[in-house]
Amino acid sequence: MRPDGRASDELRSVQIQPDFIIHPEGSVLITIGRTKVICNASIEDRVPPFMRGQKKGWITAEYSMLPRATPERNIRESSKGKVTGRTMEIQRLIGRALRSVVKLEDVGERTIWIDCDVIQADGGTRTASITGAFVAMVLAFKRALEHKQISKLPIKSYLAATSVGVHPIYGPILDLCYKEDSTTNVDMNIVMNGQDEYIEIQGTGEEATFSEKELATLLSLAKKGIHQLIEAEKAVLGDLFTEQKVGTSK
Amino acid sequence: MRPDGRASDELRSVQIQPDFIIHPEGSVLITIGRTKVICNASIEDRVPPFMRGQKKGWITAEYSMLPRATPERNIRESSKGKVTGRTMEIQRLIGRALRSVVKLEDVGERTIWIDCDVIQADGGTRTASITGAFVAMVLAFKRALEHKQISKLPIKSYLAATSVGVHPIYGPILDLCYKEDSTTNVDMNIVMNGQDEYIEIQGTGEEATFSEKELATLLSLAKKGIHQLIEAEKAVLGDLFTEQKVGTSK
Amino acid sequence: MRPDGRASDELRSVQIQPDFIIHPEGSVLITIGRTKVICNASIEDRVPPFMRGQKKGWITAEYSMLPRATPERNIRESSKGKVTGRTMEIQRLIGRALRSVVKLEDVGERTIWIDCDVIQADGGTRTASITGAFVAMVLAFKRALEHKQISKLPIKSYLAATSVGVHPIYGPILDLCYKEDSTTNVDMNIVMNGQDEYIEIQGTGEEATFSEKELATLLSLAKKGIHQLIEAEKAVLGDLFTEQKVGTSK
Amino acid sequence: MRPDGRASDELRSVQIQPDFIIHPEGSVLITIGRTKVICNASIEDRVPPFMRGQKKGWITAEYSMLPRATPERNIRESSKGKVTGRTMEIQRLIGRALRSVVKLEDVGERTIWIDCDVIQADGGTRTASITGAFVAMVLAFKRALEHKQISKLPIKSYLAATSVGVHPIYGPILDLCYKEDSTTNVDMNIVMNGQDEYIEIQGTGEEATFSEKELATLLSLAKKGIHQLIEAEKAVLGDLFTEQKVGTSK
Amino acid sequence: MRPDGRASDELRSVQIQPDFIIHPEGSVLITIGRTKVICNASIEDRVPPFMRGQKKGWITAEYSMLPRATPERNIRESSKGKVTGRTMEIQRLIGRALRSVVKLEDVGERTIWIDCDVIQADGGTRTASITGAFVAMVLAFKRALEHKQISKLPIKSYLAATSVGVHPIYGPILDLCYKEDSTTNVDMNIVMNGQDEYIEIQGTGEEATFSEKELATLLSLAKKGIHQLIEAEKAVLGDLFTEQKVGTSK
Amino acid sequence: MRPDGRASDELRSVQIQPDFIIHPEGSVLITIGRTKVICNASIEDRVPPFMRGQKKGWITAEYSMLPRATPERNIRESSKGKVTGRTMEIQRLIGRALRSVVKLEDVGERTIWIDCDVIQADGGTRTASITGAFVAMVLAFKRALEHKQISKLPIKSYLAATSVGVHPIYGPILDLCYKEDSTTNVDMNIVMNGQDEYIEIQGTGEEATFSEKELATLLSLAKKGIHQLIEAEKAVLGDLFTEQKVGTSK
Repeated sequence: MRPDGRASDELRSVQIQPDFIIHPEGSVLITIGRTKVICNASIEDRVPPFMRGQKKGWITAEYSMLPRATPERNIRESSKGKVTGRTMEIQRLIGRALRSVVKLEDVGERTIWIDCDVIQADGGTRTASITGAFVAMVLAFKRALEHKQISKLPIKSYLAATSVGVHPIYGPILDLCYKEDSTTNVDMNIVMNGQDEYIEIQGTGEEATFSEKELATLLSLAKKGIHQLIEAEKAVLGDLFTEQKVGTSK
Repeated sequence: MRPDGRASDELRSVQIQPDFIIHPEGSVLITIGRTKVICNASIEDRVPPFMRGQKKGWITAEYSMLPRATPERNIRESSKGKVTGRTMEIQRLIGRALRSVVKLEDVGERTIWIDCDVIQADGGTRTASITGAFVAMVLAFKRALEHKQISKLPIKSYLAATSVGVHPIYGPILDLCYKEDSTTNVDMNIVMNGQDEYIEIQGTGEEATFSEKELATLLSLAKKGIHQLIEAEKAVLGDLFTEQKVGTSK
Repeated sequence: MRPDGRASDELRSVQIQPDFIIHPEGSVLITIGRTKVICNASIEDRVPPFMRGQKKGWITAEYSMLPRATPERNIRESSKGKVTGRTMEIQRLIGRALRSVVKLEDVGERTIWIDCDVIQADGGTRTASITGAFVAMVLAFKRALEHKQISKLPIKSYLAATSVGVHPIYGPILDLCYKEDSTTNVDMNIVMNGQDEYIEIQGTGEEATFSEKELATLLSLAKKGIHQLIEAEKAVLGDLFTEQKVGTSK
Repeated sequence: MRPDGRASDELRSVQIQPDFIIHPEGSVLITIGRTKVICNASIEDRVPPFMRGQKKGWITAEYSMLPRATPERNIRESSKGKVTGRTMEIQRLIGRALRSVVKLEDVGERTIWIDCDVIQADGGTRTASITGAFVAMVLAFKRALEHKQISKLPIKSYLAATSVGVHPIYGPILDLCYKEDSTTNVDMNIVMNGQDEYIEIQGTGEEATFSEKELATLLSLAKKGIHQLIEAEKAVLGDLFTEQKVGTSK
Repeated sequence: MRPDGRASDELRSVQIQPDFIIHPEGSVLITIGRTKVICNASIEDRVPPFMRGQKKGWITAEYSMLPRATPERNIRESSKGKVTGRTMEIQRLIGRALRSVVKLEDVGERTIWIDCDVIQADGGTRTASITGAFVAMVLAFKRALEHKQISKLPIKSYLAATSVGVHPIYGPILDLCYKEDSTTNVDMNIVMNGQDEYIEIQGTGEEATFSEKELATLLSLAKKGIHQLIEAEKAVLGDLFTEQKVGTSK
Repeated sequence: MRPDGRASDELRSVQIQPDFIIHPEGSVLITIGRTKVICNASIEDRVPPFMRGQKKGWITAEYSMLPRATPERNIRESSKGKVTGRTMEIQRLIGRALRSVVKLEDVGERTIWIDCDVIQADGGTRTASITGAFVAMVLAFKRALEHKQISKLPIKSYLAATSVGVHPIYGPILDLCYKEDSTTNVDMNIVMNGQDEYIEIQGTGEEATFSEKELATLLSLAKKGIHQLIEAEKAVLGDLFTEQKVGTSK
């Protein structure tokens, strides 16, 4: 039995509250168990220098935690004067994941800024950020469509992410809370789209290893969780692909 | 008539939601009109080096805005690698204001960390931060009292802050929203305690000036607003000074 | 009796030596008691990016202390690699104060750089900097007028600043030296123009408060001191407004 | 046919030159095709603060490229004044991978510093760094064993890493050179130990996705490459586990 | 004929004003032609970590220019957030030069901080800084001797520095002003002691070269200038070595 | 007898291996005794802003050491976030030295980037860098000539550098290894061209001095060493000036 009584293949409760902040083009508060992330999407009418003249958009993400999102207060990165390696990894991961489901050529020369700010952390903040950021981004695109800034929704697929791990007591489990995460040596973050295709697999054994068989179980747990997360996205966003047949993601 | 229909001496609606985040010792979400600030108070069992051995506590504050707290996205200070002058001024102001109502010798060699994170901005974020931070700090002290870490509430007085200004059309007004603030040249932030004493007056004419008479009107508006804010604090905190007679703040 | 024998409403001796450094467009050494500040004004023929195309000038200030301006050696900010919060506050204050008395539209698209370098400190360095910087700036404008870079002196009024405070022994006093300043909890810097209008009031009770009555006394002391400082400015600059009647400062 | 004529499951030529630099405790030059990395291992007789008192060792890695390791000159990170996100990710990956095969409690309170400096890059620098760093680290431990600083080799298993990817023309391939890597959207780095267990899987589709079937092929290619790399390691290090039977890596 | 009418072997006028600033242990304003440098010496009762326990003192120097010490305003190094290479070179040179004439073992475990702040520059600021810093340092040691913090003056010799160069029109010249310096390709700074021994020779041909014969002439000019500078030092400091016979500098 | 058995006027063995790295336009590994430096020269088709429009080239150098180039591991400058004063001095020296032998007007508006990366250090790394960088730069120019990017070799002369010093036991010696360098107080780096002209003399007595006679001996030793180094350069580069008579270096 897991600390919060969940089955090994059970996701925590998920809420996605749209229009959380008034200013951004897209904004949600995503709550997964006790993890809460504000995900805001902003549209800027230009691309960074390395993308200019390509008639394509760009998506970039920033991630941060409030100092007291965690049980112990963390030093603010602005006070340290630099962004940690962990933050950079997460920012790069969120950006890559979102870019994989967007037709950048349909965005025009615009940058989508994604801001994921964790206000309360209990494990899984990076995967919650990806899931929440996807919804915030689609909300921003919907608004741009309404304002006729773009002519169609530049989305290829749904997108969601979750974590899985091999726990020394509970074995392979889905959607680790902080208590589980901190006692699990093998830890994997999976990002998938709505066609059951992988976008990112990051599996790591900190001072540990995992076998081919364990890998298979973890991938299967993740798929189950991602199906549920995509249902939660649909509850907010509606069915994005009713009429057109969305094929492979390329 | 002001943009949101308020009278010149009318505060925006104020909500102070206690226990907003689960981890900090004290936490509130303060909402003043459309301005929303998460104020968290953390207690650390040591003081900074310059305070060691004095058998007194210390209070320090950090202030930040989410990038999309504002209509235009701001660059994150952690990305810039440095904290702006504006942020530093606000942090120093919040810290000084709180220290003025706390008996630091009753705190013991502890540091109170105040984190004010603006998630939505519409003017008056620094004064909302002071008011919210005061409540979060008292909640943290109450909890320390329950846990017998301290033997009495080390508070000398209530504390609240508001802004006033001389608007070219509306004249002297209380509690400026962003639209008013950005068109007002004379702008003043006032911090007062529960005995109608001043803790901080910061009045500035950006490319403008103000007369002695205008100053008197502004001070009077501020006092009215601060009385109301202290009532809102009492609704959350109860009457802190019922039995003991709290005298002057020294 | 104050440490240097002054009456409570008595300013220290003031000297303003013009043309102190040969290179700047305007340069003074201001000496107030034992506080000495080199104030240089430079004119650059362009404005910062956020001001471009507005056909107005800009004024910006930098402030620094030599490491041994003080009894204990301070670490140089260039060695620390960052400017402290205190320095930023002072720089912003000096810039705002000067901009309030200049008709920026008469300056053209030029930046006035003010450099205040404290070579010897004994309290009141920020207010001495404002007073000295005003004179250096007017000298620079006079030179620009002689060289026909501008067609009239873009000055709306004289400008001076001083400090006042409530001392536990001497009570309310004018123009605090370091020894007084370090033992005073309520401390106020006042910037006024030549029409007795306020430009900036920064009053702060570090772990203390002040009453409405004390505020009134402090404002009155400050006004007296500022009158004397403006006399010292006139001794260097002459009467800037003899023929034209300078009205309100807006 | 791949650009350099290799079969899809063919590794580039591998050389590991031990004792490349005279000063470090362990030093190799690893050459994989045209990629060359100097891997140095240093032993320091203390651990970082967060590890003190645990009677365990620590392993940390730094990674850098010479500016002209690449066809276009890169700006030196010391000139930029900060380490990029890519470098941080690689450094963290190398450190985690090495720690997974070391019995840290047998190292004592020592830090193993791994420095991977790419002097010539042609794809696969991070996986070459891991493989080379493993050999340098074991050489350093062997020397510590000779000097009786440690009593046995604290190694649980061999360790090697390679890259695999799905190329739009060649399909799934092993050990991508730069030309292949830059035209491949799905790219995966695999770290395994000598018991065919996974230590790290990092698969990413930059603007692309991959199916379960493609994943299976990639994992199989990687296993083949890693077997060959471990043979190259044994040629330098000898058989580390002849007499004792090394079981599972936990 | 040189721009200011000097002969090729003629030094500019030299003034050394002692006790310029009240707070430092030693302070001078050195004026060489139009170059003015405030040199302050501070004594701290401890040495940097790398010197601890050696029962010797340490001397370290910092050098800075006011932004308007020069005809064009320079950006303040504190604003840039870093010290330039030129500044570092000069700081290291001043420190080395001073250390060469001090018996560090007679200083005790103390650090002498030298601050050279150029308030007006017209060429030769680094050599003026060395000469001025020597006087400030000796004044500080004299005061320490009076206060019985040290038992004898820990000085081995006088010390002075000057610049020489080969000018395309004037040929080899002594003590270059800025106008000369900026048109001279071969430029040499010479530091010598009172026994005509070299402490530092820094000769550089920026896009130029110099012959052995030119080198001999330059060294001879420098020696002449340094004799005069040492006379100016003696006018302030008196004869430091009257009674004891100061021998070789080692 | 010196530690490695050399005579006082004997250079260590010198190897210059051309085309060491494949990507740069010019690349050598220079080995002097146990000191090894990779010197790469890159040609960029533009000049820095301060050189634009002058129809001349620019040469700039960067210098770095691998952390374990030395017996003790050094902290990487990219980790420190800043370049040390020593590194800056060396970089500036290398750049100046190379510029002194190049006809910049014949380079066109191009920047030559020199990267000197010390992979193994045993004294004399800065002088080895200059000698190696000269060869790498000429190789890059030869290649540009072959590719008809430039019409003639823009070289005025050969260039080499070595160190000399006065050792307390061995007296004046040539080409100091680390062990000698660390016990020598008077240390001099000499850069000369192929016409026996000086480009740079940097002689410094760290807590010591040197006489005119010692200076003469040191200059003579350096000249001998530089003759040998230029022979080693010719073995790689051939005779650059056979047909045209290269006269003075201007």
